[in-house]
Amino acid sequence: MKKIKISVIGSTGYAGKELVKILMNHQNVKLVHLVSSSYAGKNIAEIFPEFLNKLDKKLINFNLDIVSQDSDLVFTALPHTVSMDMVPELLKKGVKVVDLSADYRIKDSVVYQEWYKKELNQISKELLLEAVYGLPEIYLNKIKDALLVANPGCYPTSVILGIAPLLKHHFVEPVGIIIDSKSGISGAGRKLSLGLHFAECNENFKAYKVVRHNHIPEIEQELSYVYFGADNKEQIKRIKVSFTPHLLPINRGILSTCYLSLRGSKKEEEVLEIYQKYYHKAPFVRIFKPPNLPEIKYVAGTNYCDIGFSIDERMGKIKIISVIDNLLKGAAGQAVQNMNIMSGFPETCGLV
Amino acid sequence: MKKIKISVIGSTGYAGKELVKILMNHQNVKLVHLVSSSYAGKNIAEIFPEFLNKLDKKLINFNLDIVSQDSDLVFTALPHTVSMDMVPELLKKGVKVVDLSADYRIKDSVVYQEWYKKELNQISKELLLEAVYGLPEIYLNKIKDALLVANPGCYPTSVILGIAPLLKHHFVEPVGIIIDSKSGISGAGRKLSLGLHFAECNENFKAYKVVRHNHIPEIEQELSYVYFGADNKEQIKRIKVSFTPHLLPINRGILSTCYLSLRGSKKEEEVLEIYQKYYHKAPFVRIFKPPNLPEIKYVAGTNYCDIGFSIDERMGKIKIISVIDNLLKGAAGQAVQNMNIMSGFPETCGLV
Amino acid sequence: MKKIKISVIGSTGYAGKELVKILMNHQNVKLVHLVSSSYAGKNIAEIFPEFLNKLDKKLINFNLDIVSQDSDLVFTALPHTVSMDMVPELLKKGVKVVDLSADYRIKDSVVYQEWYKKELNQISKELLLEAVYGLPEIYLNKIKDALLVANPGCYPTSVILGIAPLLKHHFVEPVGIIIDSKSGISGAGRKLSLGLHFAECNENFKAYKVVRHNHIPEIEQELSYVYFGADNKEQIKRIKVSFTPHLLPINRGILSTCYLSLRGSKKEEEVLEIYQKYYHKAPFVRIFKPPNLPEIKYVAGTNYCDIGFSIDERMGKIKIISVIDNLLKGAAGQAVQNMNIMSGFPETCGLV
Amino acid sequence: MKKIKISVIGSTGYAGKELVKILMNHQNVKLVHLVSSSYAGKNIAEIFPEFLNKLDKKLINFNLDIVSQDSDLVFTALPHTVSMDMVPELLKKGVKVVDLSADYRIKDSVVYQEWYKKELNQISKELLLEAVYGLPEIYLNKIKDALLVANPGCYPTSVILGIAPLLKHHFVEPVGIIIDSKSGISGAGRKLSLGLHFAECNENFKAYKVVRHNHIPEIEQELSYVYFGADNKEQIKRIKVSFTPHLLPINRGILSTCYLSLRGSKKEEEVLEIYQKYYHKAPFVRIFKPPNLPEIKYVAGTNYCDIGFSIDERMGKIKIISVIDNLLKGAAGQAVQNMNIMSGFPETCGLV
Repeated sequence: MKKIKISVIGSTGYAGKELVKILMNHQNVKLVHLVSSSYAGKNIAEIFPEFLNKLDKKLINFNLDIVSQDSDLVFTALPHTVSMDMVPELLKKGVKVVDLSADYRIKDSVVYQEWYKKELNQISKELLLEAVYGLPEIYLNKIKDALLVANPGCYPTSVILGIAPLLKHHFVEPVGIIIDSKSGISGAGRKLSLGLHFAECNENFKAYKVVRHNHIPEIEQELSYVYFGADNKEQIKRIKVSFTPHLLPINRGILSTCYLSLRGSKKEEEVLEIYQKYYHKAPFVRIFKPPNLPEIKYVAGTNYCDIGFSIDERMGKIKIISVIDNLLKGAAGQAVQNMNIMSGFPETCGLV
Repeated sequence: MKKIKISVIGSTGYAGKELVKILMNHQNVKLVHLVSSSYAGKNIAEIFPEFLNKLDKKLINFNLDIVSQDSDLVFTALPHTVSMDMVPELLKKGVKVVDLSADYRIKDSVVYQEWYKKELNQISKELLLEAVYGLPEIYLNKIKDALLVANPGCYPTSVILGIAPLLKHHFVEPVGIIIDSKSGISGAGRKLSLGLHFAECNENFKAYKVVRHNHIPEIEQELSYVYFGADNKEQIKRIKVSFTPHLLPINRGILSTCYLSLRGSKKEEEVLEIYQKYYHKAPFVRIFKPPNLPEIKYVAGTNYCDIGFSIDERMGKIKIISVIDNLLKGAAGQAVQNMNIMSGFPETCGLV
Repeated sequence: MKKIKISVIGSTGYAGKELVKILMNHQNVKLVHLVSSSYAGKNIAEIFPEFLNKLDKKLINFNLDIVSQDSDLVFTALPHTVSMDMVPELLKKGVKVVDLSADYRIKDSVVYQEWYKKELNQISKELLLEAVYGLPEIYLNKIKDALLVANPGCYPTSVILGIAPLLKHHFVEPVGIIIDSKSGISGAGRKLSLGLHFAECNENFKAYKVVRHNHIPEIEQELSYVYFGADNKEQIKRIKVSFTPHLLPINRGILSTCYLSLRGSKKEEEVLEIYQKYYHKAPFVRIFKPPNLPEIKYVAGTNYCDIGFSIDERMGKIKIISVIDNLLKGAAGQAVQNMNIMSGFPETCGLV
Repeated sequence: MKKIKISVIGSTGYAGKELVKILMNHQNVKLVHLVSSSYAGKNIAEIFPEFLNKLDKKLINFNLDIVSQDSDLVFTALPHTVSMDMVPELLKKGVKVVDLSADYRIKDSVVYQEWYKKELNQISKELLLEAVYGLPEIYLNKIKDALLVANPGCYPTSVILGIAPLLKHHFVEPVGIIIDSKSGISGAGRKLSLGLHFAECNENFKAYKVVRHNHIPEIEQELSYVYFGADNKEQIKRIKVSFTPHLLPINRGILSTCYLSLRGSKKEEEVLEIYQKYYHKAPFVRIFKPPNLPEIKYVAGTNYCDIGFSIDERMGKIKIISVIDNLLKGAAGQAVQNMNIMSGFPETCGLV
């Protein structure tokens, strides 16, 4: 059976670790290099003893020549802006890249700069033209031929999948969209922070970054493409959302509650039908028939996005509940799904 | 020092237990009878060993004569509809009542029936005329003279306190109000239910009763009074809200995220000012200056309601974050606050 | 590839659900009947929505003829004493059985009766002669030919695997053994109980059944066999343990801390060596080299038993730390491991 | 009413914060200075918003002259070894000190050096002669006159209170004592550490420092005094314990399970009697009658130590379960209890 050679750069963050877990059991993958600047020289099982007897592999420092020479495809799971420079170098060496950072997700470099407070360099701006936004449920065909896939953010994945069918079919108004999202704590990453300590987060719940979270432009870009068409690039025809992220005292999972205004009266069956049709071929999206609603525990540890909805006739609103595992469909799982598609493997290979 | 004689009916549910905890240390209270149909005959410290060496009191079955004869004021912490019949009997015997159920909160009996699927009897309908909605930050003076106080629900307390100043000053539109609330699990009460088991709730998060939660009419009633005036009784001038409750894997606390449309552009200072003014004399409301926001852990175990906000200029929206402890400001704490006011004690007595 | 036909009786308890999850992905298994008296008539995905799009199967009531006719091997995941009668009937019909209850684990029926407060009937007493205790690390060869495997309890699995090598090699005294175990809450099962409610267990920790937990005879039986030899049946040569279970506010996992008296002075390397040797061929036991110690998170979601130790020279004691996932190596995972062995499949098939 | 002037040095760690919470409501205390090197210049309510509207006080850097001039008594809640030098200076200025560090707990400076890997200087060695170990249930009279109280460690408090009566009355053997303790995560303090992150601790459980935790010498010293008499200073008559701490995924609380060998057969009533007698005047110790056992939730948020026991006749052992809140009876609560005694206030003043 055909195997491709894969390396993971940034393999000791939470998303990186999940990537390794999936890839080491993937029947079409030969795991070549695990790069970790923090733990180079150590065996991954020393850092994460759950790999004992399962994976015996030394972590190494990044070396462009070695990594690119030995790999067909590389996952970059690095902090935003670190990826920006590394990705073009890998591509130049002929390696495909799935980038888990935000650096190649925003098509409009002005918007990128505004939200990320950093300018894209010229090389990266050009690369944006060929980067494909890695949401397979929308961009399946483009991903097949992509050399660079910008893997979506966790919140955007839950939100875009949750409301795309409604926007696509113009069942809802493209204005006044409210998104109230709640994420488990692994979403904040594995960096040192007092605010992430157990005794600070446990038995607590809070909103954060309520004014501007940098997943907003990504959500707005993709919702705008869905509603106005992907060829529409005018800023003026841009959907805006009010987005509020919150921190849940659980390890994994995102639940987004989205509030949209229905355009005219719609029946449950009509809504159900456009969702089922939209995701007819999507192996990782499950639609719940009202009054059933998804819960985080149904998707934790899986690559599924579960979606349910409820029509609020009194208010003329529709509420959509969308759940994912932030480290899988929201990061590593979706990245492997993209790799599968780029490599001609079955979309679900290695994923549950 | 003056002491009043107090009994608690329904003293072994979560709210009842909190009532007992507060009252046994209240310097103006003599705790007379603890009624519990489930555990009558046992000492409360047998059921809740945390009372050992603190409170040595037998739980009894309800007896109208005994309870009313020995008590100046009674707290009824009973399931909805059980209170409906008991409250008039207590009042007839000359006992003041703070009722923690929903039975005397809804002024319009048609609305009550619609949401609670039960008709108010004639006696209860008449009693509604004298019942006072026990939100001291709004009805302080009425509570002073009340014989019957309908203690507010937990979600309504967080929501009404959170947005009343904005509605009062017509800073926001009275339409399209979205309320996304999250509650700890004690809010679901102490009844047997597989869905409340640790292994079912832990590491999970879900929305529930998304179509109709019976706290909606209570929220809408009070918000309408705030906006249109309390003398306005017409259904037509009624504020409607889209309300979605969620279940947090924590013991205590509610956080409500409210989304409203600003009427024209408003500055942070203006908003801050109306909040500070509105709650100038309220000892249990704390306003957070942006960008600070309240978190559940700041109020857990206290009678505070902490409120913060953020203006979303891009969307013309204002987001309000309001947090309380669902068992205290959302139930037992507020009930004691009402008792203090009804009895002429300092409003904060026995509460932290 | 060869497939065997499998049914699960008791498929909607926590262990049963795990069995179904493993078996539905097992390449050598055709899942035939899922029996559940509580939910017969419903689809399993209605009860556990995580099965949506993965397993479309109706739950049925138990019917001996149908189940035995259609199955090569049956898992019985039933309350203790319910299994007792069902197992012989299945065997009589020529079906192999892996029984997850305790009914066929205790070889001495007097001991069984003393601890389980129920007498074994004559048929069951006779069956005990052919039942094999399903701990593959000790009874691999017997399991290969077994018709009935009594799958070990969760606590016993962690304890026996943790200290068997020390007893086998007489490195420790067979007296004064102290076992302090801590289990996640799923170990208590899925039955209705106020004590298992989230708000009762969360932020709590307690010991329970400190006087007599019915896993004690199972632990003592197997440790006695290890030390004195399996042919030793005399009660007098019986190892006794002081066992204290505690309830952890987590979903899954057991950690047992075992305290034994070293026989003479032993070096870390010697101890390490006997462990590595004892488990040389065991695919699911991992030995940690001091000072490394296993943690519950390393094994949660897996079939591993991780073991570490520390020599306390000041006290002449050795402490052994042993961790498993109570629902996998402590129940469903081990049951499938036994099925693999009984069926000639690779021991690790379908398990991680 | 008499008020004493109190300052807290180290007021922004978890124990320091609890001290401030208790002291600000203590009727006999005037809170003077809050020292925090990390946050000097900020208001405490900026660091911990739960103090909003309750305490309006600026954190300051330590200044010996100012602090000692303005204070009657000072709490030092500092890292071990930092206290060592500060305490003598404060005492020299005529200020009483309750020190929450371990620096003045160990009477034998050789033992201190062996376990803490730091030598006591000459001044500190001399101070040890007048320092009183602050366990009021044992040293009540000495604490009354003490100028320096060494506040006990959290684990030692739970263990010593748990088994002192048995040792005092020689009901148990002074050898082979096994202590298996489990602590909530706040016990690890508020310093930055990846191992304390929510996603690392949550749904996990582990043993740590199994070979040598520096609470061992403190436990052994006090148990030896209880058994052999406080005038016994010979190392040879020293009780040794096997101690294993574990980390619980909860915020607060310690449960210690202690295993001792009964000297001859003892009846439950006899054991109960010596416990009740020993703690007859102790307001914060509650003894549970078998088969009742204490749980962490009974004492969380209080200054109680709850103790239960179970006689294991089969093994000739007695198991003692002892629970405290690690931040209260295990730190700040006990410190205030000591302050009360040193100042002639009722022992329970300000504590619940």
